Amino acid sequence: MSSFSDLPSLIPFHLNFFSYKQLQNAESHFGSLKAALQANRSDWQNAKIVGDKQVDGLFDESLEKRIDETLEWGQGAQQDLVAIGSDEFPDMLKGIADPPILLAVRGSVSLLSDPQLAIVGSRHASRQGINTAKDFANFLSDQGLGIVSGLALGIDTAAHEGGLLGIGKTIAVVATGLDRIYPASNKALAHRIVEQGAMISEFPLGTKPLTYHFPKRNRIISGLSVGTLVIEAAVKSGSLITAKTALEQGREVFAVPGSINNPQAKGCHQLIKQGAKLVESGQDVLEELVSVLGGDWPVHEAREGSSANGEEIGKTEKQSVSKNGILRFIEYDPIGLDELLVLSKMPVYEIQSQLTMLELSGEIEAMSAGRWRRIK
Amino acid sequence: MSSFSDLPSLIPFHLNFFSYKQLQNAESHFGSLKAALQANRSDWQNAKIVGDKQVDGLFDESLEKRIDETLEWGQGAQQDLVAIGSDEFPDMLKGIADPPILLAVRGSVSLLSDPQLAIVGSRHASRQGINTAKDFANFLSDQGLGIVSGLALGIDTAAHEGGLLGIGKTIAVVATGLDRIYPASNKALAHRIVEQGAMISEFPLGTKPLTYHFPKRNRIISGLSVGTLVIEAAVKSGSLITAKTALEQGREVFAVPGSINNPQAKGCHQLIKQGAKLVESGQDVLEELVSVLGGDWPVHEAREGSSANGEEIGKTEKQSVSKNGILRFIEYDPIGLDELLVLSKMPVYEIQSQLTMLELSGEIEAMSAGRWRRIK
Repeated sequence: MSSFSDLPSLIPFHLNFFSYKQLQNAESHFGSLKAALQANRSDWQNAKIVGDKQVDGLFDESLEKRIDETLEWGQGAQQDLVAIGSDEFPDMLKGIADPPILLAVRGSVSLLSDPQLAIVGSRHASRQGINTAKDFANFLSDQGLGIVSGLALGIDTAAHEGGLLGIGKTIAVVATGLDRIYPASNKALAHRIVEQGAMISEFPLGTKPLTYHFPKRNRIISGLSVGTLVIEAAVKSGSLITAKTALEQGREVFAVPGSINNPQAKGCHQLIKQGAKLVESGQDVLEELVSVLGGDWPVHEAREGSSANGEEIGKTEKQSVSKNGILRFIEYDPIGLDELLVLSKMPVYEIQSQLTMLELSGEIEAMSAGRWRRIK
Repeated sequence: MSSFSDLPSLIPFHLNFFSYKQLQNAESHFGSLKAALQANRSDWQNAKIVGDKQVDGLFDESLEKRIDETLEWGQGAQQDLVAIGSDEFPDMLKGIADPPILLAVRGSVSLLSDPQLAIVGSRHASRQGINTAKDFANFLSDQGLGIVSGLALGIDTAAHEGGLLGIGKTIAVVATGLDRIYPASNKALAHRIVEQGAMISEFPLGTKPLTYHFPKRNRIISGLSVGTLVIEAAVKSGSLITAKTALEQGREVFAVPGSINNPQAKGCHQLIKQGAKLVESGQDVLEELVSVLGGDWPVHEAREGSSANGEEIGKTEKQSVSKNGILRFIEYDPIGLDELLVLSKMPVYEIQSQLTMLELSGEIEAMSAGRWRRIK
């Protein structure tokens, strides 16, 4: 099956919102995307791959103009188009059942392939919830995890703010075209995210914030991430949809508990009852990721430091982990934390942080009973 | 193996704090408890069943007097001695690894054989925690569950208060002799518990509130109960010991979550992380008990209404459940809640409450997928 990395061929389908499955069917039916674009209207109607409205779109006179506009946008500074199948398309997102076929990106494209954690929650969060989100995001970003959220007010905003404070930075996945900012009050935050992190969308330029786009967008938030953390959410809320898609995608779900008298805690409690991990701190999230995912933790290629941000991570982490770090003491035979404490004379916190980074980079794997071994 | 129901033979061993295991060994070694009491000091020393101090106790001159005092106490109004193996000794408590061999009871002995739920928590509970404990206890007592707790200040006190408000009433398991009340400030509450429920102890008359008796006492709180509910507890606390013994005894553990900034919620969060069920309401506890225990719910004989309290339950429950109740519609083929709703025209809440009572009395059993069938 094609990897769909040929951007110009992909844009017409993207602009008419083909799903990944429909795109695969079209390629299979017509032989290639280029052949599909050369087919005529009745060929498309007979193929019954997509509905009549999508066929109409492919033969709309304005299509050429929109393709040119899109390609031109992709040439702008800090503006990129990333097709599914291209090297820059994040593996985690490609692994879900219905990935987007094209991502518009403002900011750092390389950030997309770093390990990410989604943090989402209520727009009507309490002051305490806001502080919690910011603290968790800051801590986890400092562990090298990018913080993915949806640029909404409340918890999302706090998650982005906290992510920007750490080395992992943050990704905003929005439900509009990237030429718009919603909500408008987050314009300054969006600007900082583009400068230091990334803002991404699967929706074409000009797309307005339509209600039914938000649940669809949520699968990208969870799909980019090794897990989704929910901090304050009502029982019927978008955050619970994101948690549900995370589960469907086989990713971890974490929830912060609250008072049983706080309506914004009920969504989190429902998730915990359904099997989400209760977490009280960023350290809890980290420990769960390491213990649950263990050796199955998705292996991400270390970024090459092509952006300022990449270099920053390179400096902070690669040095400590490989040259003077704990990896010196980890061989192919499993070793426990106790022994690492004695050998390295480092504080427990530092050892655990380094172990996480080494698992993320695929250099070691966690064994049972809190032991680790080198795998390459 | 003997049932150890012969009270006078048992008292000397009880007064010297034999464990159930030691008692079994003594009977096995000497042939019977009576023979054991007739054995001389060197026989006991050679038998190596118990330590020298316990042997000394059995040959202490003051033993006769203490046996007489204990027997006399058991003759008092609303004062009973219940030996392991007697019909009045609760089956749930007999089912634990190290049951007490004799219980002193003030109040209603028959209450001990009703289904019980333990509710425990911090002495330093918040106002909200106190209200939560009282609400849960009242609701669950109204479902026919007796509320077991430890007569401490804070959550325990609120649990007893709530239990007294419902039909299931309450049992206080104390760590002193029953001729004492600890803490003294709960004297009025203890009086009401004796009037309407029961206060019990495995410790001989005159036993002071010694620190190391409390953890030992906790195994009786959980051991009497189908499950233990923890409401506000610090990480290192007696409540967590009770939850631990509940798990060791194969009983359910429930915990109420709270803000991650509330130190009194940390113990509950730790329990949830370790597998305890998160509950937000009494209804949650009820549903978990029914769904988890299902047909394995311990079958308790319905009380015969010999006490005022027993008659009250008889009137309230037996009528509605068997004559005009939901049991009419439940046959040996499983039936679902939907069908019961249509057939009975009763509110869901009423149906669920009756189903619980019928499971408790062993007349129906829960099947998978929310269905029930008659079993006798």
